[in-house]
Amino acid sequence: MATPGSTTEEITARTCCAPANDAALDDSRSQHLAQVFKALGDPARVKLFSLIVASADGEMCVCDLTEPVGLSQSTVSHHMKLLVEAGLVTREQRGRWAYYRTVDGAVEKAARSVLTV
Amino acid sequence: MATPGSTTEEITARTCCAPANDAALDDSRSQHLAQVFKALGDPARVKLFSLIVASADGEMCVCDLTEPVGLSQSTVSHHMKLLVEAGLVTREQRGRWAYYRTVDGAVEKAARSVLTV
Repeated sequence: MATPGSTTEEITARTCCAPANDAALDDSRSQHLAQVFKALGDPARVKLFSLIVASADGEMCVCDLTEPVGLSQSTVSHHMKLLVEAGLVTREQRGRWAYYRTVDGAVEKAARSVLTV
Repeated sequence: MATPGSTTEEITARTCCAPANDAALDDSRSQHLAQVFKALGDPARVKLFSLIVASADGEMCVCDLTEPVGLSQSTVSHHMKLLVEAGLVTREQRGRWAYYRTVDGAVEKAARSVLTV
């Protein structure tokens, strides 16, 4: 903790233990976390993600994701791209179809990161 | 689990245990969850939320939130409004200033909801 009389330099050097008001996540970290949460910040993507979580073998073909969400394959693929880019889902092309799996612990890790700064 | 031969009515009545491919969150639930995640889908809001989490007494005045994120008070208030509307933060007006607290368990609950459909 900074004490009364600390110089600016001293406070800066103690970033690891700064008072709560200086404890904001840095730009890089907050941008990454925002990307993860934004990826889930859409009802269709929430559904798509939860469908894969709930799937019997933890994997779903894009061909099986369109009907439950009532969207075209190109729209589903766009949503899935954002989930992949956020690190929440992996994509594997097998023949004609793309298959998706959720990344273990990714949601929990993001949640923990904003709760334990 | 629905068994072969189940009627549509029976399957509907068993939403809790439907097969994986029918396990999409319903519209209302997925919209709510998307609102929660979208509220955190912005770097400034991630920072603001984490600042309150990390604050010494679990509460921060809007007057102390502007400097750490480098934004005007009106911009901070706008971001905070979205966090409040998503149920992640509560707001209390005391005299001139608004004070914010995070809602215990709100982030964890949203994370769990997409992980255990």
